Amino acid sequence: MKKKSQILLVALGGNALIRKGQKGSIEEQFENLKNPIRQIARLSRKYRIIITHGNGPQVGNLLLQQECCHDIPRMPLEILVAQTQGQIGYMIESSLDNELMSLGLSVKQRFVSLLSYVVVDPEDPSFACPQKPVGPVFTKEEAEKLPYPVIKTPKGYRRTVVSPRPLSIVEKNEIRKLTEMDFIVICCGGGGIPVIRENRTFSGVDAVIDKDLASAKLGEEVGADIFIIASDVAGAAIHFGTEKEKFLKNVSAGEIHSYQKEGHFPPGSMGPKVEAALEFIGKGGKRAVICSIEEIEEAVAGNAGTEIRL
Amino acid sequence: MKKKSQILLVALGGNALIRKGQKGSIEEQFENLKNPIRQIARLSRKYRIIITHGNGPQVGNLLLQQECCHDIPRMPLEILVAQTQGQIGYMIESSLDNELMSLGLSVKQRFVSLLSYVVVDPEDPSFACPQKPVGPVFTKEEAEKLPYPVIKTPKGYRRTVVSPRPLSIVEKNEIRKLTEMDFIVICCGGGGIPVIRENRTFSGVDAVIDKDLASAKLGEEVGADIFIIASDVAGAAIHFGTEKEKFLKNVSAGEIHSYQKEGHFPPGSMGPKVEAALEFIGKGGKRAVICSIEEIEEAVAGNAGTEIRL
Repeated sequence: MKKKSQILLVALGGNALIRKGQKGSIEEQFENLKNPIRQIARLSRKYRIIITHGNGPQVGNLLLQQECCHDIPRMPLEILVAQTQGQIGYMIESSLDNELMSLGLSVKQRFVSLLSYVVVDPEDPSFACPQKPVGPVFTKEEAEKLPYPVIKTPKGYRRTVVSPRPLSIVEKNEIRKLTEMDFIVICCGGGGIPVIRENRTFSGVDAVIDKDLASAKLGEEVGADIFIIASDVAGAAIHFGTEKEKFLKNVSAGEIHSYQKEGHFPPGSMGPKVEAALEFIGKGGKRAVICSIEEIEEAVAGNAGTEIRL
Repeated sequence: MKKKSQILLVALGGNALIRKGQKGSIEEQFENLKNPIRQIARLSRKYRIIITHGNGPQVGNLLLQQECCHDIPRMPLEILVAQTQGQIGYMIESSLDNELMSLGLSVKQRFVSLLSYVVVDPEDPSFACPQKPVGPVFTKEEAEKLPYPVIKTPKGYRRTVVSPRPLSIVEKNEIRKLTEMDFIVICCGGGGIPVIRENRTFSGVDAVIDKDLASAKLGEEVGADIFIIASDVAGAAIHFGTEKEKFLKNVSAGEIHSYQKEGHFPPGSMGPKVEAALEFIGKGGKRAVICSIEEIEEAVAGNAGTEIRL
């Protein structure tokens, strides 16, 4: 086998598994994974690969189940994130296995899913102000009885959690090593299990880390070359949703940073993706591309998505 | 660091996390893990270590939550097993991290949790007859509405699932490699995610594999030297619960095999442990010891539990 020199890091958005309007049956999730995983399997012929993934809809489902069933002790968010890393890691591995097989690569191309922890700062300002909505929608009456902070969203009341910035991936050395051995590594699911470092030990915290920011940090720490942020949008645009809307095909970090400061990218959606791409490029990454899940290969080839360069 | 030559495989029973009579709050589970994980951390100074674990109570809780909450698509058993591998892997890693730290080993001793699949035979006779009870207890009326096979147990009606024999651990090469690199590897949770091999791909099946049998197979495949089966019993006894009860301290494989044929070890509890120990010893393992979770170190030292030798 030809030596693969470059590391390709693909961050799959939550909609790679559960699309808008779907409840997320197991059949739906496996069906949705086929397209992106087939592309990644093909790309594994040329690149060493790391896959990270979102877990929003899956954690939402687990939270809903916890709310329904009062006989069972509720688990903190860190445990639910760990559960979704198990679940989604399994689904991605199964899909990879099928696709590698159909390409005749299943013997030589191995893969592995790692539980991953991400260190956050206990002094992170987000701890003072939980702002990220997660899980089920409640009525006002229900919300008042909940034991945690809630906010009013257009859909109703939702639990909010802290979303601190990722400082370091605990398993970075293991992931780098496995990548050097040419394993496809699946990790940092749902942005990783958030932990704070006390002396030299780690403790879980009730929080959720943005998976694109966690992926950018991982990319920096393992020395990834290309960072693909794949979701349900084709890329970044300025003046989005207006007559002046303009899709960005290939922009410098400086240019897109200016657009970001001008408020072109909303905080809950495109904002963190642009930020993650900028972080990666700013810390030595070669290429970052924001693209749709259907266009991962085209994005790697330079033919789709929004590419951010130094 | 002195080269560690021997591999110690420790299979932790489900009660390492949730003890009888407990509902399994997160505090209870972490507290219960302290004792066995502290012992394992100390043993890591001398041995390369693999940890496997049960997941009965945790899968039971997830099944109960699924039954409560009809709005969320039900996940098949294989997905719930994957979820518990994430959850329990995380709890074991957190506990290990603390204990290694307090021993001053946290810098050099690394660990990693792997999602694990175990291949079973689609022709396994158990597929014709699901006999292993899992999850919540139902009334007769509730049980009649369930979409899967149930049996009547002393507590009430319970779902039964297939429990086929483990043929091979899919990740055996990765686990061996990581062990050679002196990672403590946590794997085969809940007996592994059961898959059947079709051509060269794997498909999940709705089943549960006995975790001691899966661990024995893993021990054989990675060349483990010592196999510790730790649960809530101190070891194996003949004439158990009678006046003639005799604890077995050190028995030959032949001797305990005879006792097993005479029916001294009940199918649901000591039977599979004895069988797993015999499998391991029969396939080249040096020592297998059935012991209590509190006596792992003593069992490794040859001072506790029931040791089975060739």
